[in-house]
Amino acid sequence: MSATPAADSELGTAARLLHEALAERREAVATIDPRLLPDLDRLLTFVDSGKWLRPRFLLAGHRATGREPDEAVLRAAGSLELIQACALLHDDVIDRSDTRRGDPSTHRAVAKEHADHGWSGDADHYGISVAILLGDLALAWADDIFTAAAADLDALTATLPVWRDMRTEVLAGQLLDLRATADLADAPEAQIADASAINRYKTAAYTVERPLHLGAALAGAGHDTIAALREYGAAIGVAFQLRDDLLGVFGDPAVTGKPAGDDLVEGKRTVLLALAREPLTGTPDLDELDAGIGRSNPPGGIDRLRDLIAATGAPERLESRIAQLHAEGLEALRRTTDGAPVVATSAAADLTDLARRAVFRER
Amino acid sequence: MSATPAADSELGTAARLLHEALAERREAVATIDPRLLPDLDRLLTFVDSGKWLRPRFLLAGHRATGREPDEAVLRAAGSLELIQACALLHDDVIDRSDTRRGDPSTHRAVAKEHADHGWSGDADHYGISVAILLGDLALAWADDIFTAAAADLDALTATLPVWRDMRTEVLAGQLLDLRATADLADAPEAQIADASAINRYKTAAYTVERPLHLGAALAGAGHDTIAALREYGAAIGVAFQLRDDLLGVFGDPAVTGKPAGDDLVEGKRTVLLALAREPLTGTPDLDELDAGIGRSNPPGGIDRLRDLIAATGAPERLESRIAQLHAEGLEALRRTTDGAPVVATSAAADLTDLARRAVFRER
Repeated sequence: MSATPAADSELGTAARLLHEALAERREAVATIDPRLLPDLDRLLTFVDSGKWLRPRFLLAGHRATGREPDEAVLRAAGSLELIQACALLHDDVIDRSDTRRGDPSTHRAVAKEHADHGWSGDADHYGISVAILLGDLALAWADDIFTAAAADLDALTATLPVWRDMRTEVLAGQLLDLRATADLADAPEAQIADASAINRYKTAAYTVERPLHLGAALAGAGHDTIAALREYGAAIGVAFQLRDDLLGVFGDPAVTGKPAGDDLVEGKRTVLLALAREPLTGTPDLDELDAGIGRSNPPGGIDRLRDLIAATGAPERLESRIAQLHAEGLEALRRTTDGAPVVATSAAADLTDLARRAVFRER
Repeated sequence: MSATPAADSELGTAARLLHEALAERREAVATIDPRLLPDLDRLLTFVDSGKWLRPRFLLAGHRATGREPDEAVLRAAGSLELIQACALLHDDVIDRSDTRRGDPSTHRAVAKEHADHGWSGDADHYGISVAILLGDLALAWADDIFTAAAADLDALTATLPVWRDMRTEVLAGQLLDLRATADLADAPEAQIADASAINRYKTAAYTVERPLHLGAALAGAGHDTIAALREYGAAIGVAFQLRDDLLGVFGDPAVTGKPAGDDLVEGKRTVLLALAREPLTGTPDLDELDAGIGRSNPPGGIDRLRDLIAATGAPERLESRIAQLHAEGLEALRRTTDGAPVVATSAAADLTDLARRAVFRER
């Protein structure tokens, strides 16, 4: 996802400010022991390789009030990438992912370093341990940077409850994902409800709704602006995840950068899968689908699982739901109070563009 | 470690306030999904079963200015127990500890629940995953609670850098522990230096020095008071850990609540062990000691390892170092500026008492 030129230059400054903040912390850690620096630098690589989707939404939320972001707003935006670094570092341990963005995941890379050096102890467990602690550092530093920025903007009262809710939502959403997958609901509707709740908290709130809310709150936005942004964010955030569900099964590896049918191999309990299972209740196709999910080489191959899902019409139902959410999201941007738009026109244009790219993955 | 009655009633209020804060978050999580509550309640049990050592030191640091703590100070004190919950939850995963305070460690208890219910997937990995996320929630909530309290006290500028340094120190200290254990220094002096640095950051700063510093900063303490408290804290904090080293090898299980010679079985690279290894350089005793460390049934048993260590005189050297640190710590409390004590008399009495109990583990 590329950015508009204006956003690009803002994000560039936000990235530079985040680097400066991390350089300060790197110095503090070097005082403790310089041997820790190579591990810390993994955090920098992590931050540099992201799409900066959450900072984009924070900045758009700020611009919704018609104000231009100053340095403190850009620092707050960058801090979201550290929350994301923690989430991904810990998710990769939890999901036992060997790769991240095409490279070895952090716990795998650290395990390899351990093995290469012939250090003592279990290399795999060492990698996991370092990844847990680097994630903790990223989470703690995100808090430090966001709080300092919000204090500088005199916006603590407005933003701390949002910051608190965002972190609680993403972590509880991830806990719910674990729990609902381990103890899968029997009823198809309950599976759809669980997958939807996970999308809402683990992705939509954390990726779109709360970053917008934070940006608006940093600018001292009023109730109507925040309500419109959150409505947009909840709709576009869920649509973003539903698009991910479709790409995770039907996406072109050349475009997604992930193996074909990745979600099927990983056994991810998506809304798409839950929707596909519903009409198959009591049929042999359901047994075949269930037996193939979570296996790297299901009988008949990934293509057979894709065909089973496609035949249920679930992809079309999801496309129509995505289109509906997209429309609802854009509708929220057009709201007015006493004839004036509640979301500033330039921000609404940016958000329309961001929505198109998030939901349809177009440039 | 019991508390003075005054501190007890303060800690009781701090515990009640922490419960109230967690009850609010419990409600937020229940809105996401009530199935998550049993896991959250593990966090409550965790907080309730601790010794509240860090809040005690924070309150003593606050009292060093002669001021009485109000509710916001007590909320800040309680937040330290959530940092500690995160540290222990993640440490137990990292150290693969099956027990904590005599009960199953959280990742083990969750794994058992998974197995008991016959949920799908790997029970052990599920337990680890839940423990990682509960630790993350505890860390995030600690930040929320501390920051809100510091903001209420108009003490953000004075406390946020300390809060930042404390979390960086404990996490980097833990990273250093991992690294120094995996890639053990060859030279005995380097082993002593590594073990000492780990004590300083992972224990002393985090347990004593920074909580005192935070308490003083919350009260708007001046430079001299903070310097004296930090000097006391660094000395008493290291002495506390050195006492732990001795108890981990020679302690009575009935008193410590841990298995006999626990540190030896776990292969912990303590200052005690490093000091014992130094004079053994080049002797067969060193080979025997090294071969036995980290094994639950070393040849000749734990007693043989104890005897090897005792014969080096390392325990006496450690006792004398502890006594010296204890004296240095108390000395810092007696400092004056223009004839007036820099640490208020009642706080100095409390800190003298806390030092005796931390260093000699007397009631």
